[in-house]
Order: sequence, then C-alpha cells, then structure tokens
Amino acid sequence: MKVAFQGEPGAYSEQAVFNYFGKEVETVPCESFDVMFDSVVSGKSDMALAPIENSLAGSIHQNYDLLLRHNLHIVGEYFLRVRHCLITNPGVKKEDIKKAISHPQALGQCAAYLRNHGIKAEQVYDTAGSVKMLKESGAKDVAAIASRRAAELYGMQILEEGIEDNAENYTRFLAVGREAIVPEGAPHSEGMAKTSIVFTLKNVPGSLFKAMSVFALRDIDLTKIESRPLQGSPWEYLFYIDLIGSVQNETVQRALDHLGEYAVMLRVLGSYPRFKR
Amino acid sequence: MKVAFQGEPGAYSEQAVFNYFGKEVETVPCESFDVMFDSVVSGKSDMALAPIENSLAGSIHQNYDLLLRHNLHIVGEYFLRVRHCLITNPGVKKEDIKKAISHPQALGQCAAYLRNHGIKAEQVYDTAGSVKMLKESGAKDVAAIASRRAAELYGMQILEEGIEDNAENYTRFLAVGREAIVPEGAPHSEGMAKTSIVFTLKNVPGSLFKAMSVFALRDIDLTKIESRPLQGSPWEYLFYIDLIGSVQNETVQRALDHLGEYAVMLRVLGSYPRFKR
Repeated sequence: MKVAFQGEPGAYSEQAVFNYFGKEVETVPCESFDVMFDSVVSGKSDMALAPIENSLAGSIHQNYDLLLRHNLHIVGEYFLRVRHCLITNPGVKKEDIKKAISHPQALGQCAAYLRNHGIKAEQVYDTAGSVKMLKESGAKDVAAIASRRAAELYGMQILEEGIEDNAENYTRFLAVGREAIVPEGAPHSEGMAKTSIVFTLKNVPGSLFKAMSVFALRDIDLTKIESRPLQGSPWEYLFYIDLIGSVQNETVQRALDHLGEYAVMLRVLGSYPRFKR
Repeated sequence: MKVAFQGEPGAYSEQAVFNYFGKEVETVPCESFDVMFDSVVSGKSDMALAPIENSLAGSIHQNYDLLLRHNLHIVGEYFLRVRHCLITNPGVKKEDIKKAISHPQALGQCAAYLRNHGIKAEQVYDTAGSVKMLKESGAKDVAAIASRRAAELYGMQILEEGIEDNAENYTRFLAVGREAIVPEGAPHSEGMAKTSIVFTLKNVPGSLFKAMSVFALRDIDLTKIESRPLQGSPWEYLFYIDLIGSVQNETVQRALDHLGEYAVMLRVLGSYPRFKR
C-alpha cells in the first residue's frame, strides 16, 4: 500500500504513517497538501494521512478545504504525540553542543530546554532537513531537533527524546481514501465510530442553536465543534462537527436529515473508527 | 507607544501593528509569543498585537493559552489581508527571476503563481529574513516573497503585490493590554462591541447545548465558536466563543451569569470594538 504525506522523508507526518499503517507501507513524500490530495485522487497513492489539528497550533483549515474540494472520504484518525529528539552525529556528547538547528516551530517548542542547557537556536526550514544538513556538515558541536524517524533515516544519534517543553503536544491526523468505509461494528455499537461533517447555515438568529439541537435532542455526543468565517461572505460561517456514531446508525442518519432542514450546505466527510489513545 | 509583535522587523505582524496603531508607534520585535506577552506584563511594551487565527491555517491555540495564563485583556481586533509581494534587488525585471526564496508557508501560498512564471521555490526560515538575505547577496536572478513592509525596510523593489493564489488569506490579530477597556458607545449600542470568552464544561450529555442556550435565549449573536480538547483530560473541552456585545451590556452580563451556572471555568478575555472591514 502507498500512503501520501506532506513533507520530506523523516518528517513527523511520515512517522505518523508508519505508526498508523504499519512499517511495511510505502510512503509517498509530497511537497504540499495539494499534491498529497492529488496523489490519492490520481491513484498514485492509495491513501493520504493529513494533519487536521494540533493541540498547540489549532486546526489546519487548508486540509478541510481540500476535503471539501475533492471527492475523498475520511477512513480513520490517528493522534501522534509529537516527541522532539535531540539528534547529533555519532559520538557527540550533550556537553559538546553549542547550537541546535531546526524548524522555528520545533525550536520554539523546546525553548526552555535549550535555554536550560545553554544551547543557542538557529532556524532552518524543516525538521528532517536539519538532520540531513547536520549529517552532511559532520559538525560535532551542533544538534538537530527532529523526529526519531529522521534520526534513524540518516543513521544519526539520538541523545535525548521528548525534549519539548509542553508534553501535551499532539497532532491529529485523518486517513483519507477514495472509498468510504463502514466502521467495523459501528451500526450496532455506538461509541466505536466517529463521523465528521461540514455545513453552512443561513445567517438568522439562533441558527447554530437549532443546528446543535438535532444532536442534543438525540443524545448524540459531539467531540469537536468549530466555526470558520466564510471569507468573501462576511456573515456566513462554515461549521465543522465531529460526532460519536456512524452514518450507518439510524439515530445519526435522522439527526443529519434533520440538520439538512436548516443547513444551506451539508457534507459528510466520512465515518471511521474512533482512535483509542 | 510601544507595541510588541512576534517576528523579525518586516514581518507581516509588524505590518499589522502599523496598520492598526498608526505609523508613529514604536514596534518591539519578539522571538516568540511567550516573549511578546512577557513584554507587556513587564511593562517593556504597552501593548502586544497577537495573531489569533488565519483564514487558511486556523486558530493559534498558543496565544489563547497565553491569554489564559496572563492577566491581560483584549482591547481590540484587526484583520490583515495577507498580500505577498515579489521583491527583488533594484533594477531586476520579472523575466530575469529564476528562483524565489521565502518561508515554506508563503511559498506554498504562491505555488501556482511561481509555477505559471517558471520560477523555482527555495525555502528559508522567515519571510522578512528572505529579503534581508537577498539584499546581502545582491543576486539579480532571485526574488524574495514577503510583506510590503519588508521591502520598504530593506530598500528593495516590489515587482508585484498580491501574488498569493488564494485572495481569501486573512489573519485576525488581537490587541492585548494590561487594562480592560469599555468599548466606545458599547453599553448603549449593541453590535459595535465584541466580547471573547473561554470556558470549560462538565462532561455531561447536552452540556454544550445548554451553554449555547444562554446566548440563543437572549438573541445574542455569536461570531466564533470553537472546542478544543483539554489534553490530559480526554473527556473535557475548552470552548472559545466570541459574541456581539460588551460585558457592560446588561443582557450580555446576564447571559454570562447564566453560563456561570454550567461552566466549571469561565474567563472573559475582554470586550473591544468590533473591527469594520
């Protein structure tokens, strides 16, 4: 199986692909989210694993846009705990390190660690790329900050794992494929499946309240709700909702039918097994 | 007045400071969002202008976290239309350009433009930094992609403005200060003020529906709603809501009192004039 991800070999997204799909899949690095979606549409890849939200950085709207633009389906979800590694050339000791190189976001997430160890930060454009650069330079007083996967890929040494200041750093990924799935056991076992929907509402007072009532009145639990202004239409909003249950479940189907009475646009992005952390 | 922003001189955030506060303020560049908030707390700066959401990239949770951690107040909002400029050394013509350098996000947002003009992309760590690098190198076949402000700061030539593929690229900024304000005219003129709140709810069925009823029952319009899982507490959520009206308005005050009956934690981040686009 071929799975597309955004980034270079050794990126956190590639690590997520192997964790979720298993070590035997073939990964397809893509330079952008657009290219990653196209890779699935064209059949070059069987699946894509798209980051959709990060616990520190928020939702990635661009991937919601791409889900709406393409006729693809969410078939799974995965939560990656982002664990930054301090990576060096072989034989380097921690006390030798004067400088760390990485993507600005990774450096920012390890700022206290670097300060406490008297290590200066220098920005480069990519986490995995910083490991490649460090290997090529052979420098003995420099560390890169990247994923375990990047260290393994380039045969480099991991001096410490989990150097991020905030341990609550998770990225949620969605597995996206060409065919919708029936989440295993979902019709008869509410709670095992999750469904993601996107909709827009007429801008009349209380419209969101009505929309939410279709779930509340049926005791359907929501795990995510987010509004997003529709640019160009300053008074209209897109809403993202994740709910517990599958579209094969009759209660969920009735709630979505009911929501259709209020919604201007309603799209089910997919029902899929809920990830058990 | 001194206004802190995150980034280097010439960053889009600095452009937003000048647009919002006027050309006469003094800007204080900060290497991280933490440093930017500390700059206001310590009195080094009078205000900070913090990006809180981007129309393509989503909410910036880190700045919500910092608002919760510090006793600061939102006193204003500003929407910056992100307009990427194609910037070169003086005298360069568009047909001479073989390569564009910028931050990966900016390059990605101009991918179609670059492809159509046969310009290759090369990633560097910062938009404003790419202009500085280009000036230092003196290269005549390279362009940088950055803000108008960055071009002006380094005395460089803007060949084209607005080269982003998606014109609907806005970043919303919040002005943050040490003292809460009474939005002008707000007690008597609903619709001119906006209020941002953060709260958590007990995880019981329908709790969010009840929380939203306190606004719906009083015809208070919401302009943003977002849930965010509380990491470490897998069944609890933070909610962000922006509503039309000021806490000086009695209806809003009653709704917040009512919400307090359901909320485990409730914090008003500030009432401020609504930005007119």
